[in-house]
Amino acid sequence: MRTVDLIHRKRDGEELSVEEIAYLVDGYTNGGIPDYQMSAFLMAVFFSGMTDREVSALTDRMVASGASVDLSDLPGVKVDKHSTGGVGDKTSLIAAPLAAAAGVTIPMISGRALGHTGGTLDKLESIPGFRTGLSIEEFREQLGKHQLGFIGQSQEVAPADGKVYALRDATATVESIPLIASSIMSKKLAMGLDALVLDVKVGSGAFMKKQVDARRLAQMMVGIGRRVDKRVQALITDMNQPLGYAIGNALEVMEVSQTLQNAGPADLTQLSLELAARMIHLGKKAASIEEAREVAQSKLLDGSGYRKLKEVIGAQGGNPQVLDRFELLPNATGAREISSPRAGYVSAIDAEYIGLASAMIGAGRDTKEDVIDPAVGVILEVKIGQKVDAGAVLCRLYYTNEEHVEEAAQLVEDAFRISSTAPEERALILEVVG
Amino acid sequence: MRTVDLIHRKRDGEELSVEEIAYLVDGYTNGGIPDYQMSAFLMAVFFSGMTDREVSALTDRMVASGASVDLSDLPGVKVDKHSTGGVGDKTSLIAAPLAAAAGVTIPMISGRALGHTGGTLDKLESIPGFRTGLSIEEFREQLGKHQLGFIGQSQEVAPADGKVYALRDATATVESIPLIASSIMSKKLAMGLDALVLDVKVGSGAFMKKQVDARRLAQMMVGIGRRVDKRVQALITDMNQPLGYAIGNALEVMEVSQTLQNAGPADLTQLSLELAARMIHLGKKAASIEEAREVAQSKLLDGSGYRKLKEVIGAQGGNPQVLDRFELLPNATGAREISSPRAGYVSAIDAEYIGLASAMIGAGRDTKEDVIDPAVGVILEVKIGQKVDAGAVLCRLYYTNEEHVEEAAQLVEDAFRISSTAPEERALILEVVG
Repeated sequence: MRTVDLIHRKRDGEELSVEEIAYLVDGYTNGGIPDYQMSAFLMAVFFSGMTDREVSALTDRMVASGASVDLSDLPGVKVDKHSTGGVGDKTSLIAAPLAAAAGVTIPMISGRALGHTGGTLDKLESIPGFRTGLSIEEFREQLGKHQLGFIGQSQEVAPADGKVYALRDATATVESIPLIASSIMSKKLAMGLDALVLDVKVGSGAFMKKQVDARRLAQMMVGIGRRVDKRVQALITDMNQPLGYAIGNALEVMEVSQTLQNAGPADLTQLSLELAARMIHLGKKAASIEEAREVAQSKLLDGSGYRKLKEVIGAQGGNPQVLDRFELLPNATGAREISSPRAGYVSAIDAEYIGLASAMIGAGRDTKEDVIDPAVGVILEVKIGQKVDAGAVLCRLYYTNEEHVEEAAQLVEDAFRISSTAPEERALILEVVG
Repeated sequence: MRTVDLIHRKRDGEELSVEEIAYLVDGYTNGGIPDYQMSAFLMAVFFSGMTDREVSALTDRMVASGASVDLSDLPGVKVDKHSTGGVGDKTSLIAAPLAAAAGVTIPMISGRALGHTGGTLDKLESIPGFRTGLSIEEFREQLGKHQLGFIGQSQEVAPADGKVYALRDATATVESIPLIASSIMSKKLAMGLDALVLDVKVGSGAFMKKQVDARRLAQMMVGIGRRVDKRVQALITDMNQPLGYAIGNALEVMEVSQTLQNAGPADLTQLSLELAARMIHLGKKAASIEEAREVAQSKLLDGSGYRKLKEVIGAQGGNPQVLDRFELLPNATGAREISSPRAGYVSAIDAEYIGLASAMIGAGRDTKEDVIDPAVGVILEVKIGQKVDAGAVLCRLYYTNEEHVEEAAQLVEDAFRISSTAPEERALILEVVG
């Protein structure tokens, strides 16, 4: 087998065999295949795509490249939830406690902010004392005691994916559906879960700009799960405007607290409840999705989801009082209002622009090495469809350092479109796949 | 400027600026841009193509990456001839002496055999004593004295192309029209020529399998030349069967000698005369192409082309007597006949198979490091369209080592198709571009 021939065949749109995919993954992981051949292969995949059989083979081999976590000694169905990345998306911190309060065991493998999108680990780390760097043993113990734990991806898990991902990042091959699907699924499958609820974002603030692409990605991940007997269900949800009102790490933790006390934004509450219901259903704590929705609702209304998050924050070394006393969270020192230049209806709030502006003042990262400022971000005052007067506040920027505020404010201003007629109403949850 | 952004934009089909192309070529040549980014870029070019402006910028920058030869002190128009590579293609050794005999100065920058295609330098080196490794000074002197010299590409010329080509070879990005065009043209432009006649091969034995691709390649190279005020003309010619009867280095030198004595195969004679006429016309030794054809014809008939090749062989250290006394050339020790399994018409002789079979027994190379056996090859006994009886000899394999003969004979047998009806006649020269 020659690597160049495999690149050639993929380039020409042929399907590679399971053995050929294994040869590529193993060769790249052990250094036998150089970066320059793998990057050419990845670009060929970007253009030629992969069949379901190929993407499963790729995923399986990336799982096999490292250690796997075995959670089978814990009782019940282990359910994880994953979002493909959005702006203001803090549903993990709401849906997971609700489902855990319903008795589902939830090993949450979470990510970090990159580009314009946020990351659950960064949000949690805005809580003083919170530790995301649990060992696998600590994580397992936490799951046994509290049903819920948050952890980052271990270096030992799917190292082939880590190596491939770094290369994709440097070679403009990130936005490939089979490569995204196999990257997500290899990390999830290696972490010992039984079922997975996916939130595939689509729209201006998401990696997938078109619903047809989001659907293909969802179908691919559901298929990868099916082939290894893991139940995967995906919601395709709108990311044309930020989710909720808060964007920025500590700001989002505050909104999580409000939402778990049933005083949060409607869109965030609706999506979090649906995700929680899917987790409860896949976790076999309800016989039907309708029943699961009722359970999720009740865990919100009786405050048990809220208490579960407090409990978990405490268990992972954080100060649980932050959920009641927001002054214990890092707070910004400056604020800047963005006002509407005219009266009308808010017809667009470009989520990518808001995410980028927020990252620019310190809430996110350009590169993995950048340090996050947990206090800063954006709070929207309006959502799409709302009527505003000229001069009304559209949002506020919260910052601790003036350096990029001007630029960020400009970007935020550009994110809003005010129209004379009300925009069409859009659904938040667009489709269910799997 | 970030390399990853340039890859991204090329991947998405955008046009890069002259400065951006320069950044990529310079960065790659000086080591600032790693192989893995360049190979991803090359694969993106394979799929997204390049505009004429981009391919000119790429060519110019590859020329600028190394030394340029200045031949302006030599009188007249300096004309080179280049073939994109074929099987049995020895036209350089016929057309160049004819044009030189007509007074054109011809710096022939020649290549080596690779894969199933032959190379002029290897053919010349089958002549005892022939030196292809002239210094630029020796080359210049030879051109001044004899109007014609044969030389390989200097390492100092277009080093960026050399580096890019090696990477393309390992990453399945060879077959890209803009990359082929810029690679050929950068080497030619750096060698100080004023005009260029191209023979773009199309068919089973060529890199371009489709005429539309051959035409695009020809147009691109003509355009690159035009943008730097070099006259480039391209013939698109059929390579669905080998050119002439002889394939293999010394065997081809013998056929060259016969053809320059007006006793060669019709197809080889026709194409060589037309290429010579184009060179004579671009070299301004004839006012019209019709007149140039007459000149070329007369240089064949009066033996002055033949004498010119002898003179040049002598000047480059070779034994000129080989053109009369073929026993002075390396000779094979074994021969194997391939016979027709049935009576009928020869309807196909797959040039790639013949080229591969010939390479397999030692006439060509798989990798640049392989050593050529100058004596071996294939002599066809028939051409497409000819009627044969069952058992008639189709060709003979000449070898010095039995090792791969069986395999090569099988390949050669597979190359022939014998049909009950005569195939349609095909033109040899399909188009003229430029």
